[in-house]
Amino acid sequence: MHTTVGIIGGGPSGLLLARLLHNAGIDSVVLESRDRAYVEQRQRAGILEQATVDVLRDAGAGERLDREGMPHDGIELRYGRRAHRVDFPALTGGRRVWVYAQTEVVKDLVALQLADGGPLLFEAEVHGVEGADTDRPVIRYTHEGREQTLTCDYVVGCDGFHGVARNAVPEGVRTTYERTYPYSWLGILADAPPVYEELIYAHSERGFALASMRSESVSRLYLQVPNGTDPADWPDERIWDELDARFALDANPEWRLKRGTVTSKAVLPMRSHVTEPMRYGRVFLAGDAAHIVPPTGAKGLNLAAADVIVLARAFAHLKDTGSADLLDAYSDTCLRRVWRAEHFSYFMTTTLHADPEQSPFETKLQLSQLDRVATSEHAAAELAENYTGLPLGPANG
Amino acid sequence: MHTTVGIIGGGPSGLLLARLLHNAGIDSVVLESRDRAYVEQRQRAGILEQATVDVLRDAGAGERLDREGMPHDGIELRYGRRAHRVDFPALTGGRRVWVYAQTEVVKDLVALQLADGGPLLFEAEVHGVEGADTDRPVIRYTHEGREQTLTCDYVVGCDGFHGVARNAVPEGVRTTYERTYPYSWLGILADAPPVYEELIYAHSERGFALASMRSESVSRLYLQVPNGTDPADWPDERIWDELDARFALDANPEWRLKRGTVTSKAVLPMRSHVTEPMRYGRVFLAGDAAHIVPPTGAKGLNLAAADVIVLARAFAHLKDTGSADLLDAYSDTCLRRVWRAEHFSYFMTTTLHADPEQSPFETKLQLSQLDRVATSEHAAAELAENYTGLPLGPANG
Repeated sequence: MHTTVGIIGGGPSGLLLARLLHNAGIDSVVLESRDRAYVEQRQRAGILEQATVDVLRDAGAGERLDREGMPHDGIELRYGRRAHRVDFPALTGGRRVWVYAQTEVVKDLVALQLADGGPLLFEAEVHGVEGADTDRPVIRYTHEGREQTLTCDYVVGCDGFHGVARNAVPEGVRTTYERTYPYSWLGILADAPPVYEELIYAHSERGFALASMRSESVSRLYLQVPNGTDPADWPDERIWDELDARFALDANPEWRLKRGTVTSKAVLPMRSHVTEPMRYGRVFLAGDAAHIVPPTGAKGLNLAAADVIVLARAFAHLKDTGSADLLDAYSDTCLRRVWRAEHFSYFMTTTLHADPEQSPFETKLQLSQLDRVATSEHAAAELAENYTGLPLGPANG
Repeated sequence: MHTTVGIIGGGPSGLLLARLLHNAGIDSVVLESRDRAYVEQRQRAGILEQATVDVLRDAGAGERLDREGMPHDGIELRYGRRAHRVDFPALTGGRRVWVYAQTEVVKDLVALQLADGGPLLFEAEVHGVEGADTDRPVIRYTHEGREQTLTCDYVVGCDGFHGVARNAVPEGVRTTYERTYPYSWLGILADAPPVYEELIYAHSERGFALASMRSESVSRLYLQVPNGTDPADWPDERIWDELDARFALDANPEWRLKRGTVTSKAVLPMRSHVTEPMRYGRVFLAGDAAHIVPPTGAKGLNLAAADVIVLARAFAHLKDTGSADLLDAYSDTCLRRVWRAEHFSYFMTTTLHADPEQSPFETKLQLSQLDRVATSEHAAAELAENYTGLPLGPANG
């Protein structure tokens, strides 16, 4: 089999790229190692930047998002047992974010791709990419019990942090940057209505907590826990009590979360990672295959979307003009945004979490920073601009 | 001897407080352990915020400052071998800073105090403060070979980090917060004209460097060096070469500092420290006696000035109305500003220096932060507002 763009990975970045290429008249094949049900159910991010929403709409994947997605015009910060709201549109000239789970984005894109797109193969396990530095790279994979090859003009690795695409960039060429944080998140899904219409990010002496949501009847809640925590050590009652303690407000001592049945419970590690460059020969890396952010800034899915938007534009530019300029600029173009998001995610993470080794001086600095966001328009706008997402820039850049 | 306000320490904060009290008709005595020549020559800070300049003028200590001080409307950041200027007035609605050395401020204030102020005793070594929690605290000191006592209505400790006033706050009452940085500054004074009309803060792989000045013919230059560095290991030539390497610009490879005779050379440790509360009974702490910042943000002298401005207003309020409200609020009023400055100084320090243990990931975050300052108005304004100094607030707060 041959295709113009071979896409490894059928998560949101691979699927969105396939859709954008399809709309530009460029053929592609998507190879996803898992089955469809798994892909459509794995719990991931839930916050879409305006730019991500815009591209999904433009790509024809915005119908259900517009119906079911929940626009949010801010977040609430809690620290020192006080609450402060950050108003996104007021601080950014009208930008906002949307709550619409990654699983829903994937379902929408899978349906579109299967309806009229190029091949989307589930349970197609990729073993490796060969010839990255030739004109005709080859993806080797197993599908329906047979070893197969897909020859491509270009290969895009959208197969995540543990994927194989990254290995197509030789070790001597790539540089990796990383940091592992000394804490994890215990995340739960609960059949309980969110207690507040926006997300609540809480700094407390007991550690960080985040109240998010998936819908008007499903809450998504997180607690900072030590690395290596076993979810079995956290019975539902203990989780709810701890969440209430971390969100506690002096001004409203009666404030409590609405409790409900916990339907999912998992411990998520916190990691920052960047692989440079994001391109080697005719192999391009996008999304988690090239970079990981801790989830505190809600940047992971949006960064992946930005990568494939830049890439789809570059392929369209090549098709229309014959020029590979934008493809050649892909890595540099994306990395600037990637490092901005890495910095912001690090900032949000280290400002809000209690590092077990942190000194009382460092705790005071966190509180001073949060106080600054609550009292300085520039500090608040800096947070709001990063949170709602930087502009993608003109189509030629 | 008895006085209304006994001031321990004849550095800039003690002298400024004495002058402000004098102007408000409140008598004070200043006890300084060193002799006048030493006090007027010790090298310290050199950047005054607008608010500090304003209070010196109002206090009648602005004549020479207005003649010899150099207003600066920005700083230059260098990183990645590129230069970016931060324009203070444009970003802050007209605020600027002034280059006028602390030694000159001290000379001006000493002259005023000796001309018409209350007693200013040099070589008066304070041994301790007694009765902080009584109505009549006593300072015990030695002067002209005799042990003496000064009884006071109030005592203010302006005697710095190593002073004795801090000990008047019992250990069980005070909390200290601190951080020692894993690097120092090698600072030189040189008879050489500054190469640029504003300060240059440089981030480089070789470590931080700062080009400041004392006048149009005297440069003040700093290099990040390891803790424990012996200045003898840094002959002049090595210092100039290293400065040139750290300030190097790709766009202007010929750029060099103007070299001249090095007249002073010293290694300065970098430390953050806060003692809370800044008041116990009738003893108040101001300036370095209560808080230390690393010099990267040029905040130390200005914080000390802000403390004594708040304190002088509070004493005047007490005299005028009989109310101790502002004195009671002194510690909380100052600490909010102190923590803002501690955070900013930490931010400037950790963004610009190369921590010997820092990972390549952390270096990339520094560069991303600097890039953000160079490209985002809010990020630049956040730096400029903090650098030029927060407003002192209304006279009643």
